[in-house]
Amino acid sequence: MGAILVFSPDRAEADAYRRLVADALPGEEVLWSSDLADAAGKIAAAEILLGWRFPPGLLGHGSRLRWIHKVSAGVEDVVAAPDLPSGLRLTRTGGEVIAQRMVEYVLGAIFATTQRFHRAFRQAQESRWESYPVRRARGMTAGVAGLGDIGRSIARGLNANGMTVDGWRRSQGPVDAPLRRLHVGHAALLDFASACDFIVSVLPATRETDHVFSAGVFQAMRATAVLINVGRGNSVDEQALISAVRTRQIAGAFLDVVSEEPLPPENPLWRVENIVITPHVSGPIVPEEVFPDFLENYARFRDGRELLKEIDLNRGY
Amino acid sequence: MGAILVFSPDRAEADAYRRLVADALPGEEVLWSSDLADAAGKIAAAEILLGWRFPPGLLGHGSRLRWIHKVSAGVEDVVAAPDLPSGLRLTRTGGEVIAQRMVEYVLGAIFATTQRFHRAFRQAQESRWESYPVRRARGMTAGVAGLGDIGRSIARGLNANGMTVDGWRRSQGPVDAPLRRLHVGHAALLDFASACDFIVSVLPATRETDHVFSAGVFQAMRATAVLINVGRGNSVDEQALISAVRTRQIAGAFLDVVSEEPLPPENPLWRVENIVITPHVSGPIVPEEVFPDFLENYARFRDGRELLKEIDLNRGY
Repeated sequence: MGAILVFSPDRAEADAYRRLVADALPGEEVLWSSDLADAAGKIAAAEILLGWRFPPGLLGHGSRLRWIHKVSAGVEDVVAAPDLPSGLRLTRTGGEVIAQRMVEYVLGAIFATTQRFHRAFRQAQESRWESYPVRRARGMTAGVAGLGDIGRSIARGLNANGMTVDGWRRSQGPVDAPLRRLHVGHAALLDFASACDFIVSVLPATRETDHVFSAGVFQAMRATAVLINVGRGNSVDEQALISAVRTRQIAGAFLDVVSEEPLPPENPLWRVENIVITPHVSGPIVPEEVFPDFLENYARFRDGRELLKEIDLNRGY
Repeated sequence: MGAILVFSPDRAEADAYRRLVADALPGEEVLWSSDLADAAGKIAAAEILLGWRFPPGLLGHGSRLRWIHKVSAGVEDVVAAPDLPSGLRLTRTGGEVIAQRMVEYVLGAIFATTQRFHRAFRQAQESRWESYPVRRARGMTAGVAGLGDIGRSIARGLNANGMTVDGWRRSQGPVDAPLRRLHVGHAALLDFASACDFIVSVLPATRETDHVFSAGVFQAMRATAVLINVGRGNSVDEQALISAVRTRQIAGAFLDVVSEEPLPPENPLWRVENIVITPHVSGPIVPEEVFPDFLENYARFRDGRELLKEIDLNRGY
């Protein structure tokens, strides 16, 4: 049995995971690190890697690694690592944990839109009291694109607040979520887009999700509709989005993820009225909240049982 | 039987009510008006007055008036009218209808606070991508002050989103709302204040609600707590609030109602960071949504049955 290496570039966070592992698994040897040079020396002794934001070049040194548990829901960086050792298993944090937080961002974005908080903010900067009509989200239709564990949790949260929920995903199959209608495949994307007052993208970054939200989709959307992206930035054609919002083809967007993060100051997305940018804050990873998923999988790994939330390294999700 | 007079200073709105009455009650004589001079001539013939924002001086001309149905939830202006004819009955729109909209403002204010949308807005104005921790509202405690029909509906909406809900009101009695704890009377106000991450005031304007939220209450509140006022402005000592937010005794406020509306540009409330002002938009009165309450009471009035949402003109609510 090799060691467990805990890694995060944030030293306090790495230490938090180290303490959680040491407390829960007193029999294990726990190594921890928060920088590449140090971690590269330690990973050779590790059988298990727990953490995230692994620096390029680290994984190739993990010749004894048998299992990586990434504490976030997205795994595209590990899947794409050119030096990923073979024969490795990869698991991730369950989306339900992260979705509990993400759904509050999504509801906040929806209510901030219907209640026009950004207009209030601008009026307040000018000390201007001027009434405006607000809308009621209850009864509106929200479309959730991507129906993994996060998307399904978000669908339930929207439904609990009186919204009708449509879903879109790439392939057929049962969906445990309160959907009015499930739209399947790229052929159904425009139908899906035209049915929604809000579209919430939870799509992961894979080859198949590049620019799913393109000029054609924006054209199909309602003029009052708003796109909310809490998935990954690659799914949105940002040039087409800017043009769609500027020409009022759609009403706006709430983007917590963008194609280039951090978004550079010169990027025109910053300067489009009705596009709200937040700096990828909607699904924070809180060590105490995500650790139970690792612990459950640790027991399964040691017993040789099936792992939960395991990634198919060929498909990438 | 006298006529039904429909009044709103907004001509389009008065016309909307007129059409609703004419369609639903084809046998009735319907008068309508949107200005004082015209209405003063018509009200003498009216047995029933439907509408709101009645101008000072109008009600005194209603010598045949037997019933006023106000389409809003607040009735303090009618109760206080010096020329209110005696022997009159007064009803109002049920808070559940308005609360369905108000709860979205409250949830929006809570999520905008925990997700720090105002910080995002300011950063975006500077094209600045800078992460910040967000908080999770689920599991936090929201206190609802005022547990009439609107307060109870808001309590249910907060509870449905995973928040613990405490309640405060002036007197004992059963409360049909999912409360962890009911705090009763002024003696319990500080306990209530100290238990909450958010305080939502739904208090109506009565003599007894003046400055319920005073310096002492702000002192008892948590430093991270936020006051949300969707009731009436008189319940907040605004000077004390400004001081409490400026000195970080409390984290901030979302005020949809203030003591002077429209809030004048020179009022210092506009210039306190972390006090968000919205121009009394949280509980809009939509004719189609509030008309059923009138219609139900109309049938009861004609049949001599008990009216719903009737105001005790001595107590004022």
